[in-house]
Amino acid sequence: MIEVGIVGGTGYTGVELLRILALHPKARVRVITSRAEAGVAVGDYFPGLRGYYDLAFSAPQHDELAACDAVFFATPNGVAMQQASALLEAGVRVIDLSADFRLRDVAQWQRWYGQQHAAPQHLAEAVYGLPEVVGHEAIAKARLVANPGCYPTVVQLGLAPLLRAAAIEPQEIIANAVSGVSGAGRGAQVHTLFAEASDSFCAYGASGHRHLPEICQGLEAIHGAPVGLVFVPHLTPMVRGMHATLYVRPKAGADLQAVFEKAYAKEPFIDILPAGAHPQTRSVRTSNLCRLALHHAPGSETVIILLVIDNLVKGAAGQAVQNMNIMFNQEQTTGLQIVPACP
Amino acid sequence: MIEVGIVGGTGYTGVELLRILALHPKARVRVITSRAEAGVAVGDYFPGLRGYYDLAFSAPQHDELAACDAVFFATPNGVAMQQASALLEAGVRVIDLSADFRLRDVAQWQRWYGQQHAAPQHLAEAVYGLPEVVGHEAIAKARLVANPGCYPTVVQLGLAPLLRAAAIEPQEIIANAVSGVSGAGRGAQVHTLFAEASDSFCAYGASGHRHLPEICQGLEAIHGAPVGLVFVPHLTPMVRGMHATLYVRPKAGADLQAVFEKAYAKEPFIDILPAGAHPQTRSVRTSNLCRLALHHAPGSETVIILLVIDNLVKGAAGQAVQNMNIMFNQEQTTGLQIVPACP
Amino acid sequence: MIEVGIVGGTGYTGVELLRILALHPKARVRVITSRAEAGVAVGDYFPGLRGYYDLAFSAPQHDELAACDAVFFATPNGVAMQQASALLEAGVRVIDLSADFRLRDVAQWQRWYGQQHAAPQHLAEAVYGLPEVVGHEAIAKARLVANPGCYPTVVQLGLAPLLRAAAIEPQEIIANAVSGVSGAGRGAQVHTLFAEASDSFCAYGASGHRHLPEICQGLEAIHGAPVGLVFVPHLTPMVRGMHATLYVRPKAGADLQAVFEKAYAKEPFIDILPAGAHPQTRSVRTSNLCRLALHHAPGSETVIILLVIDNLVKGAAGQAVQNMNIMFNQEQTTGLQIVPACP
Amino acid sequence: MIEVGIVGGTGYTGVELLRILALHPKARVRVITSRAEAGVAVGDYFPGLRGYYDLAFSAPQHDELAACDAVFFATPNGVAMQQASALLEAGVRVIDLSADFRLRDVAQWQRWYGQQHAAPQHLAEAVYGLPEVVGHEAIAKARLVANPGCYPTVVQLGLAPLLRAAAIEPQEIIANAVSGVSGAGRGAQVHTLFAEASDSFCAYGASGHRHLPEICQGLEAIHGAPVGLVFVPHLTPMVRGMHATLYVRPKAGADLQAVFEKAYAKEPFIDILPAGAHPQTRSVRTSNLCRLALHHAPGSETVIILLVIDNLVKGAAGQAVQNMNIMFNQEQTTGLQIVPACP
Repeated sequence: MIEVGIVGGTGYTGVELLRILALHPKARVRVITSRAEAGVAVGDYFPGLRGYYDLAFSAPQHDELAACDAVFFATPNGVAMQQASALLEAGVRVIDLSADFRLRDVAQWQRWYGQQHAAPQHLAEAVYGLPEVVGHEAIAKARLVANPGCYPTVVQLGLAPLLRAAAIEPQEIIANAVSGVSGAGRGAQVHTLFAEASDSFCAYGASGHRHLPEICQGLEAIHGAPVGLVFVPHLTPMVRGMHATLYVRPKAGADLQAVFEKAYAKEPFIDILPAGAHPQTRSVRTSNLCRLALHHAPGSETVIILLVIDNLVKGAAGQAVQNMNIMFNQEQTTGLQIVPACP
Repeated sequence: MIEVGIVGGTGYTGVELLRILALHPKARVRVITSRAEAGVAVGDYFPGLRGYYDLAFSAPQHDELAACDAVFFATPNGVAMQQASALLEAGVRVIDLSADFRLRDVAQWQRWYGQQHAAPQHLAEAVYGLPEVVGHEAIAKARLVANPGCYPTVVQLGLAPLLRAAAIEPQEIIANAVSGVSGAGRGAQVHTLFAEASDSFCAYGASGHRHLPEICQGLEAIHGAPVGLVFVPHLTPMVRGMHATLYVRPKAGADLQAVFEKAYAKEPFIDILPAGAHPQTRSVRTSNLCRLALHHAPGSETVIILLVIDNLVKGAAGQAVQNMNIMFNQEQTTGLQIVPACP
Repeated sequence: MIEVGIVGGTGYTGVELLRILALHPKARVRVITSRAEAGVAVGDYFPGLRGYYDLAFSAPQHDELAACDAVFFATPNGVAMQQASALLEAGVRVIDLSADFRLRDVAQWQRWYGQQHAAPQHLAEAVYGLPEVVGHEAIAKARLVANPGCYPTVVQLGLAPLLRAAAIEPQEIIANAVSGVSGAGRGAQVHTLFAEASDSFCAYGASGHRHLPEICQGLEAIHGAPVGLVFVPHLTPMVRGMHATLYVRPKAGADLQAVFEKAYAKEPFIDILPAGAHPQTRSVRTSNLCRLALHHAPGSETVIILLVIDNLVKGAAGQAVQNMNIMFNQEQTTGLQIVPACP
Repeated sequence: MIEVGIVGGTGYTGVELLRILALHPKARVRVITSRAEAGVAVGDYFPGLRGYYDLAFSAPQHDELAACDAVFFATPNGVAMQQASALLEAGVRVIDLSADFRLRDVAQWQRWYGQQHAAPQHLAEAVYGLPEVVGHEAIAKARLVANPGCYPTVVQLGLAPLLRAAAIEPQEIIANAVSGVSGAGRGAQVHTLFAEASDSFCAYGASGHRHLPEICQGLEAIHGAPVGLVFVPHLTPMVRGMHATLYVRPKAGADLQAVFEKAYAKEPFIDILPAGAHPQTRSVRTSNLCRLALHHAPGSETVIILLVIDNLVKGAAGQAVQNMNIMFNQEQTTGLQIVPACP
């Protein structure tokens, strides 16, 4: 049994870890911390989990966490970088769902996240936990996994195989992406109130979003040189779900469908639809799946790639559990067999 | 392995059976019928199920269904009563999710459902499949189970123990209930379009709804005499979920909380919250759970009972699988361990 | 031109006043205060109002407000009672959309609102601004109008004529009511986040809600004695709208439809539907209308009254403008001719 | 008074015309046709309009319509082309909200709409009613106005000034657009049911959509040569609203913000936000406004143009009334002063 600790369990990535791990046959949540809710039973705080946990939130204590095999940080940016070192030294394997260890370049991190990095010495060691792109080997051995952001997950899943196969022009990529409101987190904010976010649609961060350098870092590692990517995220009135519409220019003769089918042939979480399909976000809701489909734009050489994930699962907690499975030599689908409910 | 057939698999109760049975360790869907979609793969019709089924819809054929151990009817009212007899004679055990076998009184059925009943000879035999109220014994032996309606499920779960314990006045009961839009089914209708049902709330059937006689039949069987029940259903802009607000008058000295706790002490799908709680429908979404809580109305002797279920699970397909488990000597929770996702 | 001031313009009742008054032919918003947003143009803060206002929020200043003919308080409870006196002394007529002056009994107010009342001397003078129930005379002369709460508006509109006509049993009334999420205000709170309030339904305040004493005060003034009322509010995933389902017991021979038709014969904002109709909240959205319909519960003497309003209009800002119109001798529909948009 | 007829009044563009014209000071709806609902009062069919109309639907009769000054066709594609000729001959001015007269090339029309065109002789005469792009002169004199589609409205508003000023590369334009579900109409269809379209997001028509040739026709008329445009529409779970994210490559030295500000300086329905803003669809809901804002993509020469309209107003019925105003020498804002309600 993998003994699990979760730091910062009251946000959406925290409760999603709890939901998934509740039925995981090889892992057990031993400690979940929250300073604010210390002493409150998990099932009282998250009524949907009543009956699934005999556990209360506790104030973070090093010894409790150090006794775990794996610790997930489901905290705001800036927390994991304070606490990871001590846990790593204690032999705990750390999976950070925040952005603290995602960028290798400390200066770039500090510019986008607006704070001093507290543990730059771990940036080189952190393995970027996008298994279908990075491969399993490094993740299996990692002490510290930086779990990718939601947009970077879906955009890289749609571009990495194409760049690796040199099948598209690397300088003319547009990534138009849309997220459900849960992506903004469980913090109380006016713009994500029901009465504000309902029945409305808007872009945000169009002049620059923190996930842009993360995406570029990953794509450039594959391409071997800078890529030209325009990225615009949008907020849509749904709870969960993320949709990417990627516009790429294939190189002469490239068969993008074949590239994807070959690259993801053995990936249990990637579902390549027939060309011309339009994946819906609800077809992956609550699951760790990514579904994708290609279109040829009429009267143009542009190819359109449509991808969907659940931002809280493949875009956060599910991918974190997938990484844990790989780190602890489990089948990567263990505990992640969740059938999307439609409707 | 329980070999399962589903008749009429393209509606919401059909796809919900498919979702639940996809991971059921003791049952296997062998045939799913749909005249209109015959030949279409399940995963093409319901994209959320891609990868979970190697099965296509087929036109209904007696021999295919007769080879099953259990057949679910997920059909509109009026179909199961035509086809159940032949399957029962072939030794198949039938679970009907429609209303065909729910009422014992054929005249009453014909009045409320506006058609001639095609199989009145089975009405007496049919067991009403509400396990927590009816008990397991009759269901375990049943050839034919009439799976309850969604409103009747939630209302009876909230009233049956109280009437059995003679803890409330049986003549002054009000059941104010609210359903998500999926309760209206997957048929194309104007009033359930997104642009019609969004951001709006209304009652319907306030002058008389088909679920009223079904509720009364169940309550009167317990009480031993007619009860006085006012029932008003409402439609609310959510996909799944059903909420009941019951107003009852306790008899002197009755402790309703204690009555519930005793009656449901061993029921895995009933969660009695502390008095004063307000269960949310999302705390049971996609699960077979019913959560309930009591309130004392200030300045009044009225007690308010709040209950939530997922109308498609405990109110339909989940309860049908629960009945199947009981009929085939499985733990009733088998395949029904589903953690509600919040958000 | 009625010169208008609005204190506390950044919440939902404030912006709704701005929306309605933008096209009011006889009133002009001269000042709108917000300490936090002082200096910000109205159209920058509320982008929907861009182009309709050449006005910025300003820090509250007595002189500015004292120069108005009418001042609306669109503030949290506890603010108007601090500031109303000075304005009244300056000859300004005050319409308070908060709860500060709604209850006549100061002890009761303090119990339900958990604070000391700062201006009890004005409680007797304040006129309760529910024109269809209270009549126009007192409102027309009032210096200080206490604008009713949303639930009290809809529930009293459904019961006042019946009690006045002695047409129902006054001791057995149940008011089951449902509100859209905007009723919880524009403050940042977790439970009203989009990802929390979507696709879920729940009761709240079932053991006691602040609007109960307000409703009872109004009904008792009509009945001349205490009434027996059970009131349970619920939260539903829509932005605007309020629905009441009232359960009453008519006295022998009473014709409730006739009572309503007579009582509201000349009321431009009350629409009595044919018996058996089911009003939808969206049929009044953004308008000052209340629509209502009656049903006879089958097999019972109970009559069901269904009513809908827009909680932010007839339940708040629209009614406040209606009161202003009456106070300043305008047609009460002036500026309130708004056609609900469906869909 | 402009005497108005509406053919096909039971869909969303029909009811939206009714909503807007209800308060139009210079127009009066004299006849509204619907074969299916003939005899039904408008207020019974659309409860939100109760009290605003003393009019019932009638079966279409030429004489009734021929007596009008203006007739709107709010019909499915293929109806107006059958009936417009006779009305034009009778001296009626026709505004067609369907697609029948939008394309000049009859072969192209027949290819995209899959039917024979019944009135090709009117294609050359029809004036494309996008006033901010086409100008008022032709519309003012038109007998027959082809009211633009929703996507073509928003996309052309965002590109026409730039192409006219030769400020962007005409061969590398991407239009990523999103529509609320009301855009799919009021017909009963499964994929637009509440339970299907809620909490999900998808692209559609990515391999080719009927609005593409309409957009290209307009842009090519301005540019004087074919343009290279990729257009992908998406469906999002909101009732009303349309958002476009346009990706363009400015020519060296071009100041796109200045181009827009100059082009739309006198347009009452176009609101140019400060660069860097993110317009929300709800800021124009129920109004005839279009709001837009520009962004410079970081690390790229691409400029991003964000635009929002209400698909049923500026994208359909509001623009039709705007055209009517121009045709009948009214201020174009007459009857279109509608303040968007937020929330």
